[in-house]
Amino acid sequence: MSNAFSFRLQTTDGAARRGEIVTPHGRVQTPAFMPVGTQATVKGLMPEAVAATGAEIVLGNTYHLMLRPGAERIAALGGLHAFMNWPLPLLTDSGGFQVMSLSALRRLEEHGVTFRSHLDGAMVELSPERAIEIQALLGADIAMQLDECIGLPASAEEIARAMQLSLRWAERCKRAFEGRVREGYALFGIVQGGDDPALRAESAKALTGIGFEGYAIGGLAVGEPQEVMLKIVAETAPMLPQDRPRYLMGVGTPDDLLQAVARGIDMFDCVLPTRNGRHGMAFTRYGSINLANARHANDARPLDEQSAHPTARTYSRAYLHHLTKANELLGQVLLSTINLAYYQALMAGMREAIAAKRFADFQAATKARWEQGDIATM
Amino acid sequence: MSNAFSFRLQTTDGAARRGEIVTPHGRVQTPAFMPVGTQATVKGLMPEAVAATGAEIVLGNTYHLMLRPGAERIAALGGLHAFMNWPLPLLTDSGGFQVMSLSALRRLEEHGVTFRSHLDGAMVELSPERAIEIQALLGADIAMQLDECIGLPASAEEIARAMQLSLRWAERCKRAFEGRVREGYALFGIVQGGDDPALRAESAKALTGIGFEGYAIGGLAVGEPQEVMLKIVAETAPMLPQDRPRYLMGVGTPDDLLQAVARGIDMFDCVLPTRNGRHGMAFTRYGSINLANARHANDARPLDEQSAHPTARTYSRAYLHHLTKANELLGQVLLSTINLAYYQALMAGMREAIAAKRFADFQAATKARWEQGDIATM
Repeated sequence: MSNAFSFRLQTTDGAARRGEIVTPHGRVQTPAFMPVGTQATVKGLMPEAVAATGAEIVLGNTYHLMLRPGAERIAALGGLHAFMNWPLPLLTDSGGFQVMSLSALRRLEEHGVTFRSHLDGAMVELSPERAIEIQALLGADIAMQLDECIGLPASAEEIARAMQLSLRWAERCKRAFEGRVREGYALFGIVQGGDDPALRAESAKALTGIGFEGYAIGGLAVGEPQEVMLKIVAETAPMLPQDRPRYLMGVGTPDDLLQAVARGIDMFDCVLPTRNGRHGMAFTRYGSINLANARHANDARPLDEQSAHPTARTYSRAYLHHLTKANELLGQVLLSTINLAYYQALMAGMREAIAAKRFADFQAATKARWEQGDIATM
Repeated sequence: MSNAFSFRLQTTDGAARRGEIVTPHGRVQTPAFMPVGTQATVKGLMPEAVAATGAEIVLGNTYHLMLRPGAERIAALGGLHAFMNWPLPLLTDSGGFQVMSLSALRRLEEHGVTFRSHLDGAMVELSPERAIEIQALLGADIAMQLDECIGLPASAEEIARAMQLSLRWAERCKRAFEGRVREGYALFGIVQGGDDPALRAESAKALTGIGFEGYAIGGLAVGEPQEVMLKIVAETAPMLPQDRPRYLMGVGTPDDLLQAVARGIDMFDCVLPTRNGRHGMAFTRYGSINLANARHANDARPLDEQSAHPTARTYSRAYLHHLTKANELLGQVLLSTINLAYYQALMAGMREAIAAKRFADFQAATKARWEQGDIATM
């Protein structure tokens, strides 16, 4: 636990970057995908199974954990790593995104946000200082600033207001974080500004001035088309320091990952591989496959017999179809595992391609295989 | 797959028996507990996780599998072992118990039972011959005769009628089974007769006359008090051939297992460890523990730090409480695993105690630890 946080950029290929993050709980090869462990668990998976997919870092949700079981309780139990038996790096979000999206009743003020808990109806306050305190109690290797994340489309005024508030909160988070002296731990700032390039530039510049160990691009994947998201990413990433990791929050599909890495992103998190896995959908090298479809009922082939992960090689489509139709827990577990393994294999493929300076070829080949589709494995 | 079915009785200690079953897919040490894989899966657990609890044989439910995905389909996909990726022995029930308990609409006749599928409303027929055919299609190492299992209490006439019908079906199952020539596979008969010792004796004698590779005691754990069940077991077991395994169907709690082994039973199956695990209940050496209880919220201790299974040693009660309260899939997975591991450890302890001729001591010490309760681990 004595590693100080650092990021080393190893290779670039165009805008794509191959690097390594060092945290108190270990190293993370970038570009990296972080499985989401909302309530101190990646849904349905033992921590060792998560690690076996290739994941080197998991995301925890401050909003959920502060409400249940509570940050002070987790701290008393030895922190989130010990609590969920995940010895590798953890990043926690600040809770802001979920306060905005999940609380029916909330009041946003300069000081912070007050909201009604969806669990017991109690009024709870989250300020920049409290967000940092909670993340320190959880023991996150990487903490995120509290920000205001708004949906798109939104008015220019609303976007500017939220971005400015997020900047003021960024400063307060930085001060609160420095006041705690957690040697080697990191705090990331979050660029806001909606789909307005000028506001994004202003946000990126101001955050860089404050100075963070890494920078996230927030407020995307909130309803806008992929091309809008990618345009903002392409414009924003170059404004961020070369020597700091860049994290695109809440993204995305396999294609989103490929495209965002091509535009200079290093880190991602998304519920898609696990959520879709729980609903019968598999992500594979040959595109996505809906296992609920009757055409799989007699198909003895595994999802990908050349996968590096045994689960994708072992179970037949017919069996996965059966488990999906029968709404069996094991179907959710197997497909979540298979999907996380595919996401990690995709990231590993990207890292290798960047290191070999052939990222464009890898991207083209990967997309061609998705489009060629499943029939090719017959 | 060349092992012929056999049973070898190795040691006895009082009525308790230590033995070994050999099947085409491997050996089973007895007394044995079979986890229930209702729909071709032990709910939520990867097959390797089931094996890692110590299970050497799993039970599959003919009723569920014949309706979905269908026995012919499973056969075309290589049989149930391949379908569910379970390479070790499988026993299938005949479907009779579930037809009786799950079908709202059914018609029982001499020929067999016709019932409405709970899945699509189709009328389906299950006869002794079809039950054997289905179990052969599934590829079960051990098949069960079709029987009529009635609830208790029931009238003497009703019990006698069902027992006699089950005997006639036993004969038809035996003929159907012999007609299929599945070298090394086994068929078990099922003793019926409710809580009437004379009817049980008649059933046991007639079945022994027909001749089976093993004998089950059915129609228990269907509503009667434990002492009635144990009395019937104690009276019935000695009427069965010494050199054949004895299987008490659908039983039971850890105490039921201990008491039934003491009365000469070799095999068990029950949904209790997995079903209760999915509802926040743990079986441990110190009795059963309801993880939903708030007293576990801050308890950093694992359920059993001396368990041979890592899952019971690793996760804190506070974490299991959190997962249970949050209704997280992983809570169901972890507690099902911990419970199956405890059941298997209990069986292993019984086997060792019988071999050492100290079963009575083991039984007393085990019950004392349950009663002493959880406080002892503080």
